Amino acid sequence: MMIDKLYEVVNKNGHVCVGLDTDLSYIPNKLVKQYNSVSDAIFEYNRKIIDATLDVSACFKVQIAYYEAYGLEGMIGYKKTLDYLRHKKAIIIADIKRGDISKTAEMYAKGHFEGDFESDFITLSPYMGLDSIEPYLSYVKDKGKGLFALVRTSNEGAKDIQYIKDENDERIYNVVGKKIQELGDRYLGKCGYSAIGGVVGCTHIEEGIQMRDELSRMFFLIPGYGAQGGGAKDVAVCLKNGNGGVVNSSRGILLAYKKHEDGEHKFDIYAREEALNMREAIRNVI
Amino acid sequence: MMIDKLYEVVNKNGHVCVGLDTDLSYIPNKLVKQYNSVSDAIFEYNRKIIDATLDVSACFKVQIAYYEAYGLEGMIGYKKTLDYLRHKKAIIIADIKRGDISKTAEMYAKGHFEGDFESDFITLSPYMGLDSIEPYLSYVKDKGKGLFALVRTSNEGAKDIQYIKDENDERIYNVVGKKIQELGDRYLGKCGYSAIGGVVGCTHIEEGIQMRDELSRMFFLIPGYGAQGGGAKDVAVCLKNGNGGVVNSSRGILLAYKKHEDGEHKFDIYAREEALNMREAIRNVI
Repeated sequence: MMIDKLYEVVNKNGHVCVGLDTDLSYIPNKLVKQYNSVSDAIFEYNRKIIDATLDVSACFKVQIAYYEAYGLEGMIGYKKTLDYLRHKKAIIIADIKRGDISKTAEMYAKGHFEGDFESDFITLSPYMGLDSIEPYLSYVKDKGKGLFALVRTSNEGAKDIQYIKDENDERIYNVVGKKIQELGDRYLGKCGYSAIGGVVGCTHIEEGIQMRDELSRMFFLIPGYGAQGGGAKDVAVCLKNGNGGVVNSSRGILLAYKKHEDGEHKFDIYAREEALNMREAIRNVI
Repeated sequence: MMIDKLYEVVNKNGHVCVGLDTDLSYIPNKLVKQYNSVSDAIFEYNRKIIDATLDVSACFKVQIAYYEAYGLEGMIGYKKTLDYLRHKKAIIIADIKRGDISKTAEMYAKGHFEGDFESDFITLSPYMGLDSIEPYLSYVKDKGKGLFALVRTSNEGAKDIQYIKDENDERIYNVVGKKIQELGDRYLGKCGYSAIGGVVGCTHIEEGIQMRDELSRMFFLIPGYGAQGGGAKDVAVCLKNGNGGVVNSSRGILLAYKKHEDGEHKFDIYAREEALNMREAIRNVI
């Protein structure tokens, strides 16, 4: 199962999930000019970032919105990036946050667990309910794939729905988290975590402690490091015995080069440096 | 504004929204064999359905999952379908149910309101909160585009989250609906409905009456007609004064030909017949 592989890579390489949120404006001009197509510019930039961070990261999260934004060219860049990650035996989380039911969800599953856009894990939005997750489970069972369902996100707007308290004085994100963990208990890996993980923003320490405690068999995909305001201390409480989650940084790593005069020429080296710093910062507090 | 255009087309052509959930297995064999690529087969089938239903429908809903399922070829078919709809001056609802925040949501907005995948309306999932809707609003304001946020879906699993009651004994879908209507009041069309509509499954009559009453300025995208079990009487309560919503049917229209011996040769004619029957069934009860 992919969740076991992810768990092992975290033990070996640390918790950093490199977010390939590749906007054209992030790519050094020099590199953009070298390529004739948007897809090549995006892919060649990603390839250099992947090569530079592969051995110091747990996995790569590819945010599909950045590729959809460039239409067909973007989708070609997306496919090339996934192909390359697979070739490098890297673990791929496709951050697609799809959320639909029955046949439509089956088609999303086919689209993102097979063929051109195949990945190892995908993110899902649970608003429609648990039957928006079930159509993906055959891929979990038969192909060892994994899911991350949104539980508690790190944005301000999380209060609008996720923070609402139910009749039992329990917040929606907690109700959702427990329902998803229950479903996930049917797909536990040898590592003790389920193939159905959760997207959990760890920007509030007390909440993080509570979630880590109550959702003890759920592997966390933790966003919000760096650019979104979270730091190593915030995420530490969401990791358990040094594992149990990966921490994503996208712009923090991709744009690390902007802080250096010679950055444009060494963007991949600065990305690696940033990933290493982040890995150490997390290791130091857990 | 697109919402005013949609309102006018409903008055003229009726409430049917033709759902282009085009699975390859739905396309008559004869047609599939005529084309060398998946994208051409999908597009040529869609083109015939569009031509046959354009003057008896309000709009077309293109469910992107069916296109993502076929990878790059599917996305080429998706783009061709949108191009053709635009060429025919049809109103396009891209059923993408995206839900993300800040820069990621901006990229989705760019991807689906500009360029290769440009549509008139997109569907959004609100789990992350109102800040997952805000990044799209510049397109509503500047380009007259529209949104449909998930409010109350028609699936069984809706009970898992949407049905939870909050501290004030109000269900989540209702809380969400009212928040979105409040946001939408900043973008009211001349027709009295906001450019921010809601996806509202009208499978329970009492609920439908209540939602139509409380969300009086929200235009409804109503799924679940036909294949998903809803009928004309169910949706009638969700329409107001003969307008205020469109009713989607996908498989009901696309697969109407399967009920006829000569269906494979006349699938477009039977699709039109089904759309006409549906239009009449709805008109007869409102």
